[in-house]
Amino acid sequence: MLYLIGLGLGDCKDITIKGLEAIQRSEKVYLEAYTSILTVGQDELEKFYGKPLIQADRTFVEQECDTMLSEALTATVSFLVVGDPLGATTHSDLMIRAAQMGVKTQVIHNASIMNAVGCCGLQLYSFGETVSIVLWQENWRPTSYYDKIASNRKVGLHTLCLLDIKMKEQSWENLARGRKVFEPPRFMMVHEAAKQLIEILEIKEEEATSRESLAYSPESLAVGLARIGTENQKIVAGSLKQLTETKEILGGPLHSLILPSTSLHPLEWDMLSMFALDQEWFQENKKYYVK
Amino acid sequence: MLYLIGLGLGDCKDITIKGLEAIQRSEKVYLEAYTSILTVGQDELEKFYGKPLIQADRTFVEQECDTMLSEALTATVSFLVVGDPLGATTHSDLMIRAAQMGVKTQVIHNASIMNAVGCCGLQLYSFGETVSIVLWQENWRPTSYYDKIASNRKVGLHTLCLLDIKMKEQSWENLARGRKVFEPPRFMMVHEAAKQLIEILEIKEEEATSRESLAYSPESLAVGLARIGTENQKIVAGSLKQLTETKEILGGPLHSLILPSTSLHPLEWDMLSMFALDQEWFQENKKYYVK
Repeated sequence: MLYLIGLGLGDCKDITIKGLEAIQRSEKVYLEAYTSILTVGQDELEKFYGKPLIQADRTFVEQECDTMLSEALTATVSFLVVGDPLGATTHSDLMIRAAQMGVKTQVIHNASIMNAVGCCGLQLYSFGETVSIVLWQENWRPTSYYDKIASNRKVGLHTLCLLDIKMKEQSWENLARGRKVFEPPRFMMVHEAAKQLIEILEIKEEEATSRESLAYSPESLAVGLARIGTENQKIVAGSLKQLTETKEILGGPLHSLILPSTSLHPLEWDMLSMFALDQEWFQENKKYYVK
Repeated sequence: MLYLIGLGLGDCKDITIKGLEAIQRSEKVYLEAYTSILTVGQDELEKFYGKPLIQADRTFVEQECDTMLSEALTATVSFLVVGDPLGATTHSDLMIRAAQMGVKTQVIHNASIMNAVGCCGLQLYSFGETVSIVLWQENWRPTSYYDKIASNRKVGLHTLCLLDIKMKEQSWENLARGRKVFEPPRFMMVHEAAKQLIEILEIKEEEATSRESLAYSPESLAVGLARIGTENQKIVAGSLKQLTETKEILGGPLHSLILPSTSLHPLEWDMLSMFALDQEWFQENKKYYVK
């Protein structure tokens, strides 16, 4: 039996009773450790569960998961994922492989950023496609998410932007030399994402037929979210430009950013105003968002 | 202090440790009882929490919540919501009102249909606007969700359709006479929703310039979901027409339905095939969805 268990977003105590009981019944417990993080480390989780955890990194999940699945044919095994276990394709892959091997699975769901984001006041119903914003590198500056944001805004939908997480990445040099030396984890912050979105705008401006045809502007309403679902979560709302100056205000990871649609429900606006970086800006801009 | 606590989707044990501890610290515990249901009743929850629960129906939450908020000014109060507490506008309203009254709040998140739906294998990232399908009445047959489905499919996004729940509704006669007599709860099922979506198609066909310009057809791929997040959940995938015949297969509430986009990731398709009503139909239709 393989349990896929969501750990939620905060600390040890965000697991469900059902999830905790499944862990305690398990002979082996794997911790998926590359798509997200909790506010507590592996030590603390092990202490809380009373079980040792085996780290499952990307290579393990994508290439070596048959070992774990074979174990689950005869033993009770748990696979722990921060948030909900089935947000990402990789874990669908695991479910399909399990079915092929005849392993019984049970998913124990939990909150993930995909639904907890409702805490900023924007209606979950009105979100369009979710985009992932990546940390630009010298020779790799993708802008493809611009089109998805544009497409969402065109039909009046909000865009949740998940910000890049780099866990156990190798430098080109170490990769080339086959050295298993990993770079320190790196988490993209709201101020970096906001800056990058404005830079993309400058690129797109040259291609666009008019300023008005652009998907957003530095003056567009945006929402910055830090550590959602934890006890010290922080939400800020203001212009994209204002969000470039939030490094100190928002603090540590994980961060996400939302580009809301240009047509908000009055309650969405009222709740966002509770997180305004600048109340005056909010007063002045209400007319563009609440019609 | 007011805790807004998500109960998740299944039974008593889907609450988080953090949520359970907050309930146990609370002097009063309200149960929001009209937007969704668990597989267990209030009695069982009370036994599990060791606390009496006060039912909060729609009227209470929308009109009388100041009583609860006043209590939360001086006492510890919990407000329990099936799924996650902040999926719907009504509860944003509660958060705003709490802030106005100076009541401290904390949200304890949990899984909701909005993220648990990932268990069918469709990528959460690729969902567009969520629609609510209502039970048609003799003189009220809205079709507005057709346009939202059309808009999602046009840009390659899946549509999650939440199906109508009628809790504590009054008949027109009882309402007119001011009698507080309520109809039995009524939950829309996948086969009813599928039938209704096909009926809408017949209406739209007259308006449309060509068959091809319609958002979907009776042969379009659709996914029926029952009791997601519970231990006896059931998922079926097939044509919308096939879904009209799933009354016995899917069983009791709650149900939801998905109209996927016409362009699926191969893994999405593979996982959906695990739930095929008719493997032959799946084989034949793969070419239209996985390009």
